[in-house]
Amino acid sequence: MKLFELGEKGIVPVLTRNLYSRGFITLPAGVDDAAAIRHLGEEIVFTSDIMFASTHFPEAMKPEEMGWKAAVANVSDLAGMGAQPLALLAAFGLPASLELDFVAAISKGINEACKAHECAFAGGDTKKAAELTICGSAIGVCRSEAGLLKRANARPGDIVCVTGNLGDAACGAHILLKRMRSRIPPETASRLVRAFTYPRARVKLGMALSSLGAHIAGMDITDGLFYSCNEIASVSGCGIRIREKLIPFTEDARQFAREQLNASPIRLLEWGEDYELLLTLRRKDFPRAQKAVQAAGGRLIRIGEVIKEKTVYLDDEKVDTKGYDAFLKM
Amino acid sequence: MKLFELGEKGIVPVLTRNLYSRGFITLPAGVDDAAAIRHLGEEIVFTSDIMFASTHFPEAMKPEEMGWKAAVANVSDLAGMGAQPLALLAAFGLPASLELDFVAAISKGINEACKAHECAFAGGDTKKAAELTICGSAIGVCRSEAGLLKRANARPGDIVCVTGNLGDAACGAHILLKRMRSRIPPETASRLVRAFTYPRARVKLGMALSSLGAHIAGMDITDGLFYSCNEIASVSGCGIRIREKLIPFTEDARQFAREQLNASPIRLLEWGEDYELLLTLRRKDFPRAQKAVQAAGGRLIRIGEVIKEKTVYLDDEKVDTKGYDAFLKM
Repeated sequence: MKLFELGEKGIVPVLTRNLYSRGFITLPAGVDDAAAIRHLGEEIVFTSDIMFASTHFPEAMKPEEMGWKAAVANVSDLAGMGAQPLALLAAFGLPASLELDFVAAISKGINEACKAHECAFAGGDTKKAAELTICGSAIGVCRSEAGLLKRANARPGDIVCVTGNLGDAACGAHILLKRMRSRIPPETASRLVRAFTYPRARVKLGMALSSLGAHIAGMDITDGLFYSCNEIASVSGCGIRIREKLIPFTEDARQFAREQLNASPIRLLEWGEDYELLLTLRRKDFPRAQKAVQAAGGRLIRIGEVIKEKTVYLDDEKVDTKGYDAFLKM
Repeated sequence: MKLFELGEKGIVPVLTRNLYSRGFITLPAGVDDAAAIRHLGEEIVFTSDIMFASTHFPEAMKPEEMGWKAAVANVSDLAGMGAQPLALLAAFGLPASLELDFVAAISKGINEACKAHECAFAGGDTKKAAELTICGSAIGVCRSEAGLLKRANARPGDIVCVTGNLGDAACGAHILLKRMRSRIPPETASRLVRAFTYPRARVKLGMALSSLGAHIAGMDITDGLFYSCNEIASVSGCGIRIREKLIPFTEDARQFAREQLNASPIRLLEWGEDYELLLTLRRKDFPRAQKAVQAAGGRLIRIGEVIKEKTVYLDDEKVDTKGYDAFLKM
């Protein structure tokens, strides 16, 4: 069977079946944002994220932005586990016809993202390739297994939260892909495009929540809110109900959806690209979690609850949780 | 300036200039086989290696072999630092027209290499791409900084060694690329091709040498013996003289060079692909190093010495140390 008949969600289970493991692997392949490896009583969190020009970088994107984004995708996986970043490596695949300045600008973007997230840029690899490729990998640490924001930690009755506004990045991606900048007030367009090109990973918030050791489930929302809800729900053996009126859209995102897409802002959630965290936590822990996140300069926004029934709902409607799948779009 | 005018050795210094570092980085980007990060008194060794179908995988190569090779390239970087492997991640770029069985076979090859080198296969990433891509990343540990086989450790007077035969893998690559299997006795062809497709990383030997804490310089020889000599020599501020009569070629490799390439076996060294380690060590440490390597099931073969003059010699001739550069072959 060919990959485009299966889609990413059909491929991954085959690639992660019966992998060689060792006793020190706390979280194995294909379950969470990252792998976790017990070492000297701590957890080393280890992730890798690969991006290709044809799939991930709209033509209108600048090289610095590509680099920034590739780095943040990796650091955000560490944030989704509650880990403190240590170091990032970047392996490049480069067409031989590229300009050195272009490649140097990508590297600069990676470096700036590393600096902004206090993660050392420690090297990588450089090879010739048919298309521009950036494969990041990153390691971080978590003090203990109890501090890992595992997807399997959700329980019915838990509160479901996000750490910031959703949908702006999807608007920005749309503006770049459809080259529709001229149809939107320049300041608004810049803000929305920036949400797509210069996302921040929620490292400090993930670390603050991790330090509570409170059975919190977490992951980033880059593949779409409902997709992420389904990931946490299915690994935890439960469901999630999101309340539409609680979803934090900006007024810009609402207006963009209404005027440019003629659609509800809910549609923006299918695009993902938000680097906020999705979290579930016990009701009793919510006040101290909120305090910890506020102390780290962020917000915890309640958007729903974990339920027993193994389904993801938006209010009373079942939702499509497939998320974006590049393999299915030939 | 375009990349094909510069070559890999011109690109890398630009990409690794002024990178954001942190106090815990023991070995920064672009110096060694891998980065080293001090954590809880140990060194976490971290590497990444990316391979593309068009550059790295001859058409006659099987998918299991591609997977094996991609994994071993990473594990070998850990071996070149003297580190014990912990875990490997594999990020795949896959054309949507590929068969699932083909991809599953690549994953199987990675898994078998992980098992053979006692390195957990802990996950990765899967994305759609224009050409088949495998980006591995791996982490390992070294007890202390003194145990890292840093390239900068060589000193004039040191003995230069390798851990096994050289050139067989280059013969194997040649046989596959030129589809010349039929011109060679089948058993010999199989053995030479296998040296290319199923190399073993010298993990146990690297660890045994690391445990001596004896200022040993080390790296693998995948980019060619003289290239590797130049890497160690230039980072250490000295030179290396290799003795031709001491280079351990097999009789098969000598015969292949003579009969198929009409050349000296020295030419095989330009191709690299050997996963043996190149090492330099103090004369006084040679006996105990040899004992440690033998106890780990290997050999230390003396092939030359470190010299003051910043040049790489084969006996009395200066040698070309450029190694293979895919960017320069448009």
